[in-house]
Amino acid sequence: MVSRVELSDFTPALDVFLGQSAYLQLALFESLGRAAAIAPSTRAKALTGVVATSTLERHRGLLAEIERQSGDAADLMQPHTGLIDDFQRRTGNGDWYESMLASYVAAGLLNDVFSRLASGLPGDSRERVVAALETDATSDETSIVAELSLAISADPQLASRLALWGRRLVGDTLLVARAAISASHESADDERLEPVFTELIAAHTRRMDTLGLTA
Amino acid sequence: MVSRVELSDFTPALDVFLGQSAYLQLALFESLGRAAAIAPSTRAKALTGVVATSTLERHRGLLAEIERQSGDAADLMQPHTGLIDDFQRRTGNGDWYESMLASYVAAGLLNDVFSRLASGLPGDSRERVVAALETDATSDETSIVAELSLAISADPQLASRLALWGRRLVGDTLLVARAAISASHESADDERLEPVFTELIAAHTRRMDTLGLTA
Repeated sequence: MVSRVELSDFTPALDVFLGQSAYLQLALFESLGRAAAIAPSTRAKALTGVVATSTLERHRGLLAEIERQSGDAADLMQPHTGLIDDFQRRTGNGDWYESMLASYVAAGLLNDVFSRLASGLPGDSRERVVAALETDATSDETSIVAELSLAISADPQLASRLALWGRRLVGDTLLVARAAISASHESADDERLEPVFTELIAAHTRRMDTLGLTA
Repeated sequence: MVSRVELSDFTPALDVFLGQSAYLQLALFESLGRAAAIAPSTRAKALTGVVATSTLERHRGLLAEIERQSGDAADLMQPHTGLIDDFQRRTGNGDWYESMLASYVAAGLLNDVFSRLASGLPGDSRERVVAALETDATSDETSIVAELSLAISADPQLASRLALWGRRLVGDTLLVARAAISASHESADDERLEPVFTELIAAHTRRMDTLGLTA
C-alpha cells in the first residue's frame, strides 16, 4: 500500500489489544474446524488444516505475549467474546467455499487492522506481536485464492454466490474492525476514521478482484 | 511403561504411515474446532485452542515429512478417510466435556500406537516423525486432566456420564488402532497382537483412573 493512514493513534492498551486479537484468532480457528468437517475433498480439507494451523500459530504467539505480561488469557479474552461470537454467528454458517472466502476476506481485513494497530504498541511487545500476526499470511492467501479460483472458473453460479457473500461479509467485518479501533482511549470519531475505512474497503475490493469477483 | 510389546514389526510403508497419521491429526483438529464452538467458558475455549494447536503442529510435522518424501498430502491421506471419518461420526457428537475426554483418551491411545509403529520407520524419517507425534502431548494431557477433574468433582452426574462415554470411546478407538496396525504388509494376526491390545487397554484404564473414572 502506498499511503497507509496511521492507526497507531488508536492502539488500545496492550492487554485490551492482546485479549481482543487472541480471541479473534480463536474464533477464526473454530470456523475453520467447522469448514474442515464439510470440505468437499481431501485436498480442500488439507488446505483448511494449513490455514487453521497459521491461525492457531497467531493465537499461540499472542498467548505467549499475554504470558510474558503475566496476564490471564481467559480473563483478557472474556470482554471481547460478545462482539466476536456475534460476528461468528452472522458469518460462520456458510458452506466450505463461503467459509474459505470468509477466511480470505474477513480474516485478511481484520489481520490488516490488528497489524496496523500493533504499530502503536510499546516497543518491546510491538515486534513480537507483529511477527505473531503475520504468521504465514501471504502463503495462506495464495493457497486459498488458487483453490477458490479453480472452483469459481468451473462454476459460474458459485461466482455469483461468493460475490454476494463477500458483500455481506465486508459489512459484518467492518463492525468488528470499528470495535477494535474504538477500544482505544482515544476518541475514535467517524471523521478521523473515514480515510482508514476507505483504505480497508479498497483492500477488500482488491482481494475480491483477485478472485475475479465484484466487490 | 516397563515392558512394551514391540510394534515395529507391524510398521506399514512410510507413505501409508504418513497418510494415515496426518489424516488422523486433521480429523482430531476438526473435533476440537467443534468443541471450541460449544465450550462452556472462555477458559475452556482457550484450553481447546491450546490442544488444537498441538494437534495441528503434529499434522504440520507429518506434512513436512510427506513433502520431504515428495509425496502429495491429499493423495496419501485419501485412502484413510473412510475409516477415520466413520470414527469421527461415531465419537464426535458429544458435548464439550465428552469431546475433551475423547481428545485425552482416544487421541492419547492413537498417538501411543502411532509413536510405537513409528519405531519401525526408516532411520532418517523415524526421529522426525516421532518428534512430530510427541508435540506437547504431556502438557496437553495435564491441562485436560486438570480441567475435567475440576468439573467431575463438582458434578457426580458428569462423572458417570463420562465413565460411560469412555467405555464407548475405547471400543471405537481400538478399531482405528487395529486398522493402523493391520495396514502393514506383515500379517497382523490376532494372536500376535493380543499382548499389544492388552497394553493399550491397560494404558486406557490408567488414563480413566487419573480422572477418578472407572474404565
